[in-house]
Amino acid sequence: MEVKQSSTTAGKPIRCRAAVARTAGEALTIEEVIVAPPKPYEVRIRIICTSLCQSDITFWKLKEPHGIFPRIFGHEAAGIVESVGEGIEEVTEGDIVIPTFLSDCGECVDCISKKSNQCSKYPFEISPWMHRDGTSRFTDLEGETLYHFAYVSSFSEYTVVDISHVTKIDPAMPPNKACLLSCGVSTGVGAAWRAANVEPGSTVVIFGLGAIGLGVAEGARLCGATRIIGVDVNPDKYEIGKKFGITDFVNSTSCANKSVSEVINGMTNGGADYCFECVGLTSLMEEAFACCRKGWGKTVILGLEKPGQQLSLNSLVVLHSGKTLFGTLFGGLKPKSDIPLLVKRYMDKVIENLT
Amino acid sequence: MEVKQSSTTAGKPIRCRAAVARTAGEALTIEEVIVAPPKPYEVRIRIICTSLCQSDITFWKLKEPHGIFPRIFGHEAAGIVESVGEGIEEVTEGDIVIPTFLSDCGECVDCISKKSNQCSKYPFEISPWMHRDGTSRFTDLEGETLYHFAYVSSFSEYTVVDISHVTKIDPAMPPNKACLLSCGVSTGVGAAWRAANVEPGSTVVIFGLGAIGLGVAEGARLCGATRIIGVDVNPDKYEIGKKFGITDFVNSTSCANKSVSEVINGMTNGGADYCFECVGLTSLMEEAFACCRKGWGKTVILGLEKPGQQLSLNSLVVLHSGKTLFGTLFGGLKPKSDIPLLVKRYMDKVIENLT
Ligand SMILES: [Zn+2]
Ligand SMILES: [Zn+2]
Ligand SMILES: [Zn+2]
Ligand SMILES: [Zn+2]
Repeated sequence: MEVKQSSTTAGKPIRCRAAVARTAGEALTIEEVIVAPPKPYEVRIRIICTSLCQSDITFWKLKEPHGIFPRIFGHEAAGIVESVGEGIEEVTEGDIVIPTFLSDCGECVDCISKKSNQCSKYPFEISPWMHRDGTSRFTDLEGETLYHFAYVSSFSEYTVVDISHVTKIDPAMPPNKACLLSCGVSTGVGAAWRAANVEPGSTVVIFGLGAIGLGVAEGARLCGATRIIGVDVNPDKYEIGKKFGITDFVNSTSCANKSVSEVINGMTNGGADYCFECVGLTSLMEEAFACCRKGWGKTVILGLEKPGQQLSLNSLVVLHSGKTLFGTLFGGLKPKSDIPLLVKRYMDKVIENLT
Repeated sequence: MEVKQSSTTAGKPIRCRAAVARTAGEALTIEEVIVAPPKPYEVRIRIICTSLCQSDITFWKLKEPHGIFPRIFGHEAAGIVESVGEGIEEVTEGDIVIPTFLSDCGECVDCISKKSNQCSKYPFEISPWMHRDGTSRFTDLEGETLYHFAYVSSFSEYTVVDISHVTKIDPAMPPNKACLLSCGVSTGVGAAWRAANVEPGSTVVIFGLGAIGLGVAEGARLCGATRIIGVDVNPDKYEIGKKFGITDFVNSTSCANKSVSEVINGMTNGGADYCFECVGLTSLMEEAFACCRKGWGKTVILGLEKPGQQLSLNSLVVLHSGKTLFGTLFGGLKPKSDIPLLVKRYMDKVIENLT
């Protein structure tokens, strides 16, 4: 057993700044907050870098009952371990870590299985609490509880994360790049690589060229896809997308009297091998399904819709087309084993683009 | 080149009996009809055995515009080649053949691919015509055209079928058994074996224990599934199902205040590895999706719904669950290569149950 070095703050509450969401859809306020010490199997992390992901915005906009306030958003980050709770040997003070919204407990039937990345000990939900005791580690200076978001809450200088959501990475990776592997890029690259297992020579369509969509492009390119069609409302995304492997672009606002799926079915002679929906709109999920190739086409849902939105598919088309539909969280990656692989690929310059 | 023996009827119209559907939902009438000789790449078949499949009933009930009358239904059959049109070397007079609603042209990108059984030269539709020239081979004694159904129309002593829909089989197979490989049993066995590729030790749920559902059970058993749960409104199906490998039964009409999916999620500790919908109701397709296991569960749609029925899935559940949904025609089998394999399995007594 190595003797753990104690930081001067270990075991004590930390007063630091955080961006707090007080009301649905209204500007975050920079406030001083109190971050409690980690309880057993928890890690307190000093956030080095955090970025904004679409899901933060989706949930920030949501009113009751799905929106819960006051809350600290942010779930795409990299940081340094400030202190650890009892029972933790996997990381120690000073380690560079990536927190993830997805758990990887390493023990449950899902975490042990090769077929799933959906930990069943700590299943994913947009919880406002820590897993194990159902409480918060954040309070404001008046003592009011601030809720967690997605088990990460990285819009704070310090946060507390369950060890099952923490992956230690090679400290040689620049934190501003590592941060992107915490959600969007991993989700995108993983979706093409692990979840869909894109075959060499394939045609791929990506709806939405944000961080996730560009990650899908990068992943599809790495898998050997030869045609990667980006769909977005913003034509500037084509130039950015080219760096990630996008070969063709469809501006979904200028398809004349055709639907996007009709345009893509025309471009691809009957549909793409893989369609990825990275926006989070059921209408686009349906379009994606409509332009994946009969017989073997796969439609992969990556975008987070508002709660309660129904995806509607013609049952005869489902039966007759032989197309497959599935969703995937975090690109089908298992955080603790797959993020280090992506870090290595980045360090080896196989993954070139992280923006 | 072998010299083909000519039957006395070859090249001439044949007058024979058929069960004609004159009006949606009304009793078929046994009439004399005229069956034209086969045109190039067509085969005229004397039907030895034909059975009734659920899809016949579905389309027989349909009124305009989807229902088309007068029509000769029937698409599950075995027969003997009476004569062949020009250009055919694959079968000859006297061969025992199985006609199928699915084409297998052997030339198109889908028929060549291992990933698809959805011929794109002659794509599946519920057409009232022969493929190549868009006409019928049937007339009644007043000269009125009688429409085809599913490229087979086996409720007639003689029928004409495109060679792409004809598979030659081992004549040692009893015709009343061979007939079942023409649709239902092949669809069911194939769905478990080819389309879903059921893994040994799996838990499987089958909605609807008709011919297709019992075929799924047989296929799942052959694949090594250890638990096979049948769901039906008719409790007598449990006894029949046991012969095919059904190990548990849920009577969907007596689940008290629970949904079928809740009952099955309880029985399976969170869902089955594979769910097969063999009835053709969107409500059951949704239930099937709801009780397949998060992370790796697969829902396979085999049942034929009425046109226009929408399958509705919660988009967040699709995203978060990691479950897969797909439909498959003819169980993912390629008729000309896979039916002979099933015939061999039957002759080798690997497949024991064909009822
Ligand atoms: Zn995210
Ligand atoms: Zn787990
Ligand atoms: Zn059938
Ligand atoms: Zn074909």
